[in-house]
Amino acid sequence: MRIARVATRAFRIPLKEKLVSATLSLTHRELLLVTVETEDGATGTGWCTTPGVGALAARALIEAYLTPLLIGEDPRHTERLWSRMWTHCHYAGPGGITTLALAPIDTALWDLRARQAGEPLYRLLGGSRNAVPAYASAINSHLDQEALLAQVEGHMREGYQAFKLKVGRPDPTEDVARCCAVRELIGPTRGLLLDANQKWTPAEAVQRCRELAEFCPAFIEEPSLSDDPAGHAHIRAQAGVPVAVGEQLCNRFEFWNYVRAGAADILQPCPWKVGGITEWLKIAALGACANLPISPHGAVELTAHLAAAIPNSLAVENIFGLGLHEVGATTVPLAVRDGMIALPETPGHGVVFDGPALREHEVR
Amino acid sequence: MRIARVATRAFRIPLKEKLVSATLSLTHRELLLVTVETEDGATGTGWCTTPGVGALAARALIEAYLTPLLIGEDPRHTERLWSRMWTHCHYAGPGGITTLALAPIDTALWDLRARQAGEPLYRLLGGSRNAVPAYASAINSHLDQEALLAQVEGHMREGYQAFKLKVGRPDPTEDVARCCAVRELIGPTRGLLLDANQKWTPAEAVQRCRELAEFCPAFIEEPSLSDDPAGHAHIRAQAGVPVAVGEQLCNRFEFWNYVRAGAADILQPCPWKVGGITEWLKIAALGACANLPISPHGAVELTAHLAAAIPNSLAVENIFGLGLHEVGATTVPLAVRDGMIALPETPGHGVVFDGPALREHEVR
Repeated sequence: MRIARVATRAFRIPLKEKLVSATLSLTHRELLLVTVETEDGATGTGWCTTPGVGALAARALIEAYLTPLLIGEDPRHTERLWSRMWTHCHYAGPGGITTLALAPIDTALWDLRARQAGEPLYRLLGGSRNAVPAYASAINSHLDQEALLAQVEGHMREGYQAFKLKVGRPDPTEDVARCCAVRELIGPTRGLLLDANQKWTPAEAVQRCRELAEFCPAFIEEPSLSDDPAGHAHIRAQAGVPVAVGEQLCNRFEFWNYVRAGAADILQPCPWKVGGITEWLKIAALGACANLPISPHGAVELTAHLAAAIPNSLAVENIFGLGLHEVGATTVPLAVRDGMIALPETPGHGVVFDGPALREHEVR
Repeated sequence: MRIARVATRAFRIPLKEKLVSATLSLTHRELLLVTVETEDGATGTGWCTTPGVGALAARALIEAYLTPLLIGEDPRHTERLWSRMWTHCHYAGPGGITTLALAPIDTALWDLRARQAGEPLYRLLGGSRNAVPAYASAINSHLDQEALLAQVEGHMREGYQAFKLKVGRPDPTEDVARCCAVRELIGPTRGLLLDANQKWTPAEAVQRCRELAEFCPAFIEEPSLSDDPAGHAHIRAQAGVPVAVGEQLCNRFEFWNYVRAGAADILQPCPWKVGGITEWLKIAALGACANLPISPHGAVELTAHLAAAIPNSLAVENIFGLGLHEVGATTVPLAVRDGMIALPETPGHGVVFDGPALREHEVR
């Protein structure tokens, strides 16, 4: 079994509405789509998305440097091919564009393997659960408190049991008021998750978290610059709120630096950022070794499979407004009921991209 | 003063001969060239090179995402523009392709500033020395011991006072024999520098370095995987040879993680890898704060200026076979005499690229 073709396409898709966090304002989603095809016509598909920067650089990396490494190789050799591609790009960076480029390739190889096996991805990975809990995540800094509560209430009615709220407002008393109101709305047993998107200095993060601790958040995500594990170790030691990190970390070594520094309570690897499934599973295993749970970041159509396959997963993140169905990349909505995502039983990851709808957003 | 145009060109240039280290085999050099031009016709030029992977991805990043940020900006605002570009690309990776793309832009801005000031770059940066020592660096794993000694002897005759030797051979007794022979040739006062190009595990590195310590190397460069500061802290504590790192580190945070972990004796930032002069100077300052010297990596036509401007520089690296003159990118050879590089007195960095010769290697 040999790889004959690797096809890469890039898209820039406008969001239905602008979404705002403490540090980002999102108007578009970039989508990079890779299809790997073997000599005998077997195929696998993988993808990554970005908040607007990088997909065209990742496409150039795939087309100029990675595709030639793949042609003629056995697509089932996921471990060897990942290492080979990563090593080949190491001078060009052990993470970032490099791992964004590896992600759709690696995902396509796993999809192909699962389709060849006639199994959905989660079962190929040894998973036994056919549904996983999801939490309701929203990029909601632009909403006033009333609109925020209406949003959370809507997600409660849909059966979600945990809700992520953006913090890091210029006036910190607003963070306190919003957290207080949401906790009151959801009651003491549902989960309140906070996300500062790297807004604060470590010292500010400690102050802000101490003010928010009384509302019992399950975690504060990215309280400070992700490049600073030492700062996060300080926050974790002082803040009184569990620290979650990972959205920006690009490979197992960057997670290891956080774990070793005692800088994280919860790991949030994103399969797109870390170069796909092969690397994501190693980071999940690092969490299992260090007695740390995994709260998968983004990529819900993929992380639902991954979470079902590992022993230490928390609920997966369903970010409203950014799902493949919501940006028009697929016609099939995520199968969510009572806050649980049912896994597809079709072979592979089960995502089918909507070629005609995507065409108008293609970037050549 | 406003930026009107940013022109980016990529080249893939064959080397005159294949060069081999413990982990790399080089046949080409990629060159990425950026020219920034203002509305009133002032220009600056910057560049980066790679060992063969990444320039086309960096070009895509510049053209699609960074150029729009620059148009209309004041090119003298190097600090603000660097931060803005880096933050804009942070999700796409805080280093790697991102910083490779920032490097030629940032260098072009500094070149423009120096040309506007009518000063050579080193003087704009506050440098007072008009020449800096260089060491003779060679990628020489493919040479047998006799050819290696002939190479070092040639560099001695040219007046060099320090020589870098690749180690990490499959048979470690060959490393010992080669180091022994080179030390005998150069005598006790000239410098012997070793480079393992990340070949060893940390434990192997300790063993190998203890065998090589008797030849008094000034440092062992990249003894193990650059993604592992903890491993390098172990090597530094145990090996009995000073540890030099930096070729693969992509920004000040990655250097800080090494310094904080006590994992480095000598810092080797490369202006291409860390995103240009603005970030390189911060890393040099980190070294000055931590009482660690800077041994600039690669980019000799640029690092000669930088080394002349900081208080804690060791000799700069002149890698034979990879200089801009040697790959045919410029017609002007480096002005080296008795192992000292004389700095150009023309405004800017002084490098003039050879357009006609480069044209046949351009990648569109």
